[in-house]
Amino acid sequence: MEQQQLIDGITDHFNHQVPFHQLIGIEVIDVSAAHTLIRAPMKPELIGNTFQQILHGGVTATLLDIAGGLAAMSGTINKLSAIGIDEVVKRLQKISTIDMRVDYLMPGRGDYFEAEAHVIRHGNRVAVTRMALKNESGNEIALGTATYSVS
Amino acid sequence: MEQQQLIDGITDHFNHQVPFHQLIGIEVIDVSAAHTLIRAPMKPELIGNTFQQILHGGVTATLLDIAGGLAAMSGTINKLSAIGIDEVVKRLQKISTIDMRVDYLMPGRGDYFEAEAHVIRHGNRVAVTRMALKNESGNEIALGTATYSVS
Amino acid sequence: MEQQQLIDGITDHFNHQVPFHQLIGIEVIDVSAAHTLIRAPMKPELIGNTFQQILHGGVTATLLDIAGGLAAMSGTINKLSAIGIDEVVKRLQKISTIDMRVDYLMPGRGDYFEAEAHVIRHGNRVAVTRMALKNESGNEIALGTATYSVS
Amino acid sequence: MEQQQLIDGITDHFNHQVPFHQLIGIEVIDVSAAHTLIRAPMKPELIGNTFQQILHGGVTATLLDIAGGLAAMSGTINKLSAIGIDEVVKRLQKISTIDMRVDYLMPGRGDYFEAEAHVIRHGNRVAVTRMALKNESGNEIALGTATYSVS
Repeated sequence: MEQQQLIDGITDHFNHQVPFHQLIGIEVIDVSAAHTLIRAPMKPELIGNTFQQILHGGVTATLLDIAGGLAAMSGTINKLSAIGIDEVVKRLQKISTIDMRVDYLMPGRGDYFEAEAHVIRHGNRVAVTRMALKNESGNEIALGTATYSVS
Repeated sequence: MEQQQLIDGITDHFNHQVPFHQLIGIEVIDVSAAHTLIRAPMKPELIGNTFQQILHGGVTATLLDIAGGLAAMSGTINKLSAIGIDEVVKRLQKISTIDMRVDYLMPGRGDYFEAEAHVIRHGNRVAVTRMALKNESGNEIALGTATYSVS
Repeated sequence: MEQQQLIDGITDHFNHQVPFHQLIGIEVIDVSAAHTLIRAPMKPELIGNTFQQILHGGVTATLLDIAGGLAAMSGTINKLSAIGIDEVVKRLQKISTIDMRVDYLMPGRGDYFEAEAHVIRHGNRVAVTRMALKNESGNEIALGTATYSVS
Repeated sequence: MEQQQLIDGITDHFNHQVPFHQLIGIEVIDVSAAHTLIRAPMKPELIGNTFQQILHGGVTATLLDIAGGLAAMSGTINKLSAIGIDEVVKRLQKISTIDMRVDYLMPGRGDYFEAEAHVIRHGNRVAVTRMALKNESGNEIALGTATYSVS
């Protein structure tokens, strides 16, 4: 129950209180232990290559990083019973990306985009996640791998 | 001379016609054969972590990718005398990021940020660049490495 | 048929004629359009951390790069009917790694290790592959992503 | 003085007691706070591409990882006065690579190769290093970036 409250709190925070999330227009769809999913609609101001009318690579990187960071946070919330609510909240506010790789697979065309992430290395200090960005047809636009500081 | 016109054209395009560049607020400062430099002022809407009031990691990735892409374009323009203006223009419109790694070194605090890039592998098909993001005090906030398709 | 001959030729070459493959002790198990698999037995001389008696990270990187390169080669062989045997052979001899990321997930313990790879971006100039290294129990020791020049 | 003993101990360990280092033939040349340097002579058994007679990409990755790991260790040794000898030794035995990116810039030709590394992010839990591999003529064969767990 308390875990779900933390997840609801983060979801609300991500959806309504992070300025750059608002600018891009992201919405958190799902946060569970094994999986996170966010969505962002295509908008004219997210275009990078005007000749091809496709998503800017920086938007792609942003969406992957948000989904990955959320997965790292979800992993931290899972440690609630072990480390307690105060420690979890403290860690959640400090989680940060150490490094990220993005692989761009095809031009970012679509009506909306979904970034999903899952944790591939659960550590006490570092979490590593893998992410995928797809459009509404399920085409894989980009894949990512990121390392987060979680303590 | 024609090379400078191409650089001026790209600079103008990057500064005024790419929607996501406008949204972030970037300005191209310098494009030369060996070096590119762009700048973006801190703005409230670029904040990612509201507890620390720092730049969103996606903005960092975006600025590094723009500087790196510009360096890859500059390398293509340098081939003007070898491949001709039509081929250069065709390639410039298609240049795309294949992959990128970002290393986040310190929180993104500052009044403005500058991303610089240089090419470390000049190929006919692929260019690899290294990038750095600094604030106005010269603190290195992030480093990056990216591979671009340039043919 | 000719495709299979090319695959058999590469398999034989990888297993018996590449000096560093011999030093490590790799064996190609499977090469198909969608998947490659190689195997290497644990040997005392592959140890990196003597306190933990685990595989050196450089061996892990080597096995992932071999599997990924083989997947890139397999993709090139698939273009046989389109580009002809001479062009395929010429390209196979030149295929090279542009960049690679390795994520180390757990200590490299096991009796033998298998690296598998598949292509995530098939291009005419560049192929991107993902790789995984597992031990005989199926534990994921490392994951990788690599970009290859294939033209 | 005690710091220098630790460095001498690691140097001796790396040069004579790590099996895979012996197999490759590495020698630690320099370990200081800001910089590490290792060397390996070209040997027939390190060849990867027999058509071009060049170093296997896995050897390149290995040399970069060794130099980077040594730089991470050197950073840990620098904390000696702060955390004490027992804690330093414990950490040194556990230091491990979390992730690494290698950028291959030119074919690995040369009589011998030197890999150098320096730390770009000094953390209490994670260190990030950058590495370069050059031949005896100073040509840059590859660059790398790696993240190490150091606690």
